[in-house]
Amino acid sequence: MKKLINDVGTIVTDALTGMAAANPGLRVDIANRIVYRASGPRQGKVGLVSGGGSGHEPLHAAFVGYGMLDAACPGEIFTSPVPDQVIEAGKEVDGGAGVLHIVKNYTGDVLNFRLAAELAAEEGLEVASVLVNDDVAVRDSLYTAGRRGTGATVFVEKISGALAESGASLTEVARVATEVNKRSRSFGIALTPCSLPGTGKPTFELSDTEIEIGVGIHGEPGRARAAAGPVRELVGIAMDAIDEDLPLGDDTLVMVNGMGGTSLIELYITFAEVDAYLRGKGANVSRALVGNYVTSLDMQGFSVTVCRLNDELTRLWDAPVETSGLRWGR
Amino acid sequence: MKKLINDVGTIVTDALTGMAAANPGLRVDIANRIVYRASGPRQGKVGLVSGGGSGHEPLHAAFVGYGMLDAACPGEIFTSPVPDQVIEAGKEVDGGAGVLHIVKNYTGDVLNFRLAAELAAEEGLEVASVLVNDDVAVRDSLYTAGRRGTGATVFVEKISGALAESGASLTEVARVATEVNKRSRSFGIALTPCSLPGTGKPTFELSDTEIEIGVGIHGEPGRARAAAGPVRELVGIAMDAIDEDLPLGDDTLVMVNGMGGTSLIELYITFAEVDAYLRGKGANVSRALVGNYVTSLDMQGFSVTVCRLNDELTRLWDAPVETSGLRWGR
Repeated sequence: MKKLINDVGTIVTDALTGMAAANPGLRVDIANRIVYRASGPRQGKVGLVSGGGSGHEPLHAAFVGYGMLDAACPGEIFTSPVPDQVIEAGKEVDGGAGVLHIVKNYTGDVLNFRLAAELAAEEGLEVASVLVNDDVAVRDSLYTAGRRGTGATVFVEKISGALAESGASLTEVARVATEVNKRSRSFGIALTPCSLPGTGKPTFELSDTEIEIGVGIHGEPGRARAAAGPVRELVGIAMDAIDEDLPLGDDTLVMVNGMGGTSLIELYITFAEVDAYLRGKGANVSRALVGNYVTSLDMQGFSVTVCRLNDELTRLWDAPVETSGLRWGR
Repeated sequence: MKKLINDVGTIVTDALTGMAAANPGLRVDIANRIVYRASGPRQGKVGLVSGGGSGHEPLHAAFVGYGMLDAACPGEIFTSPVPDQVIEAGKEVDGGAGVLHIVKNYTGDVLNFRLAAELAAEEGLEVASVLVNDDVAVRDSLYTAGRRGTGATVFVEKISGALAESGASLTEVARVATEVNKRSRSFGIALTPCSLPGTGKPTFELSDTEIEIGVGIHGEPGRARAAAGPVRELVGIAMDAIDEDLPLGDDTLVMVNGMGGTSLIELYITFAEVDAYLRGKGANVSRALVGNYVTSLDMQGFSVTVCRLNDELTRLWDAPVETSGLRWGR
């Protein structure tokens, strides 16, 4: 097994050490495994806390910063953070206006964030939660009751983060976060499994000619195995599934996301097909991201996430953001 | 072979189509394979033109934009652009203050950019060139006489781009570009080969326990094959080679670069080791990048690039940049 690691037991803390060294804008509590903005909480601002298993970087820790998250709680690889992390993060980022939990719909995450919210509430912290469940590939899965939460998490964190920055109330920030999720859908296709740093073993098996249609971000099964084909076909499968669930049209925020091991030139080719598909539906790419945003370690493949924008969401998407994973100017 | 492509013959133009669709700030001349800023040349500003084989994305096309390149000329995968592309790009971006060619030291690139510069000069265009040759791994290689040009290209494009934006003369912009190259060194280590989209074949063979020390960005051989080891050892090998060539110390710009197929969590772990190494040498990480910047398709591994900063270079590094590959606010 060949990985850029020192010790399987210290992967997450070693990565946090590197993240701290590379980002003076962050304060990284390595003992408790929480990444904060170095600037600390701002009085009157809603605090945004997210988290989830490691191995999906830049999600979530690289989205901590101005205009996005206040704290991120990474678990072990593909393992939920524990309630203590989430409680501690919430207390630290509370500026008196309450805290929003942004939770991807995986059973472990849902249970641990819920427990954290309840325990924090008992200590007097006001907490609201938004559940992200944008993946239309499967109804239930190995790790989930209901739809899985994937790429839309980036949109929810960015857009609700912008609103929180403007001083909006917890109710308002939670409303917008929910609205983004409601308007967003995702679908992923894997060309290869990922390999876990601990074992070096692939998370599932695919032959040299097979792909996994509707794969989850931990490599969990999707809708079907199929023969590999041209990317135009793969994009057609993904976009048909999305369009069937949420009819496409008008201004669309589009992310073509790499799963960690796919070359960027392939993602651009994929984006061209998504753009052509949307135009065919009378929709248009209004805002776009192409790159690795919600990864599955070194899996090869892509996911596409769309969000049907309105004026409010577009304005909040365009608002300044300063994180290591997403950044544009004030 | 499983790749996100439609046709081996249209990989570069399909990718350019996607890049155009995703980036309204770019004007993409697909027929001539040139990526420009949509805003066009600015009168009195030196135009920056770079280019090279495709497969290294985000280099170069994603670094076209305010504060960085004016145009990029992608060749076929791992193949130099032709002189016609470079001549055309130079004419288009000339704002009357001349054009700087930023050229990675590979024989094909050097010859084609030189020919382009000569032909453009005959037509009255003022052209200066900077050759980037930061890779200390090998003296000559399969594709190069002298050192190869790798990660420092990102630094050269960013820093000289910032100076050009301020209205400096071609002589000044070329001086700073040369200075950045002089102060920069790189070293790369591959865990796996990359696979070419055309053939699906790996560019070289490595066993499950072997790594390539000093690999080039096309998978060309480095200094040695070695057994895989903890990343601390690998970073030690890379940084020792750099330090031997350019003694490390003081404020350092550091890039830990993924080769396209390595997970981001591994790159953070690698960065932690680079930071520890530098501190051991009395140097410090003054500015940092962690991610995929100069890739080799889907190769797994990393390269580290350092630049010993001075006040001028730091100020120019911090200047605003608005490209899809590198961006921070004005």
